[in-house]
Amino acid sequence: MSRPAPRKPEYHKINKDLFVLTYGALVAQLCKDYEKDEDVNTYLDKMGYGIGTRLVEDFLARSCVGRCHSYSEITDIIAQVAFKMYLGITPSVTCNNSSRNEFSLILDKNPLVEFVEELPAGRSSLCYCNLLCGIIRGALEMVHLAADVTFLQDRLKGDSVTEIGITFLKKLDEKKYRRKK
Amino acid sequence: MSRPAPRKPEYHKINKDLFVLTYGALVAQLCKDYEKDEDVNTYLDKMGYGIGTRLVEDFLARSCVGRCHSYSEITDIIAQVAFKMYLGITPSVTCNNSSRNEFSLILDKNPLVEFVEELPAGRSSLCYCNLLCGIIRGALEMVHLAADVTFLQDRLKGDSVTEIGITFLKKLDEKKYRRKK
Repeated sequence: MSRPAPRKPEYHKINKDLFVLTYGALVAQLCKDYEKDEDVNTYLDKMGYGIGTRLVEDFLARSCVGRCHSYSEITDIIAQVAFKMYLGITPSVTCNNSSRNEFSLILDKNPLVEFVEELPAGRSSLCYCNLLCGIIRGALEMVHLAADVTFLQDRLKGDSVTEIGITFLKKLDEKKYRRKK
Repeated sequence: MSRPAPRKPEYHKINKDLFVLTYGALVAQLCKDYEKDEDVNTYLDKMGYGIGTRLVEDFLARSCVGRCHSYSEITDIIAQVAFKMYLGITPSVTCNNSSRNEFSLILDKNPLVEFVEELPAGRSSLCYCNLLCGIIRGALEMVHLAADVTFLQDRLKGDSVTEIGITFLKKLDEKKYRRKK
């Protein structure tokens, strides 16, 4: 695995508060549109998927990440390069099974909820940050990696950490697998 | 007027593409929700207003801007400090009348539309970036400055530049006016 050498020109950076508040407005709008939390979650995931499919090209171009040879390496890239680049945080990674295709990203802090004290009333099943799961899923699919991505724990729901689970769905064929560059 | 000395710690910065694409998803959702462009514009402005009222405190705390003594100074702060801080661009400012209460921010480039080639079909009256007008209006109102903020020109509509007009609605009483610090 070649070391990622992210280029992060200043003009690509903006203050995150504007993004965080705009995201809040988006979630509020969806809560207005959809009565069921599950529908809001699905919609956020779907929106995120679309964003991920567009973001991945830019990510690969700017991050200069090399070819990965295992799901573990891929998850590390997501945590250490992608999260760092797009949200300014670096989740820790754990592997959850012996087949090494199930991983967790543990977020000690989550910038997306900085202005959110609690879930809206009557919205206890809302996955407020579900856009993130969709983005990861969409980006992975664009490099031919099918994955389930869901929130396993969420501080907004009273859990002690926020945890995103990534389950890669196919056996990785190391010979065939070529990461887009 | 004291010189602004913005503090911009790196952890407050994120990559703007994620924001730009998320904003696009928000606008798309509103276009789905509201048939009339005018309703989408109003809603974006309203959302922006809410964001502006929350963003302004953070802006004043971090930008360390001092007291302003004229509308011209205030508009310069918006262009040179706020736009720079939140969107990474610095619009140029023109004053449009002799009473010096009407100004334009001229945006040579607009990061919010980077992924947008044209307005959606049948949406020729959409003010795609109207959130920005609402944000400026909301932020100004929080420092007791009533203003009309609207798009006067928009490259997405075929104009040669993007121009946001700000009309301050009250005569500025320089003795009484104290900017929150």
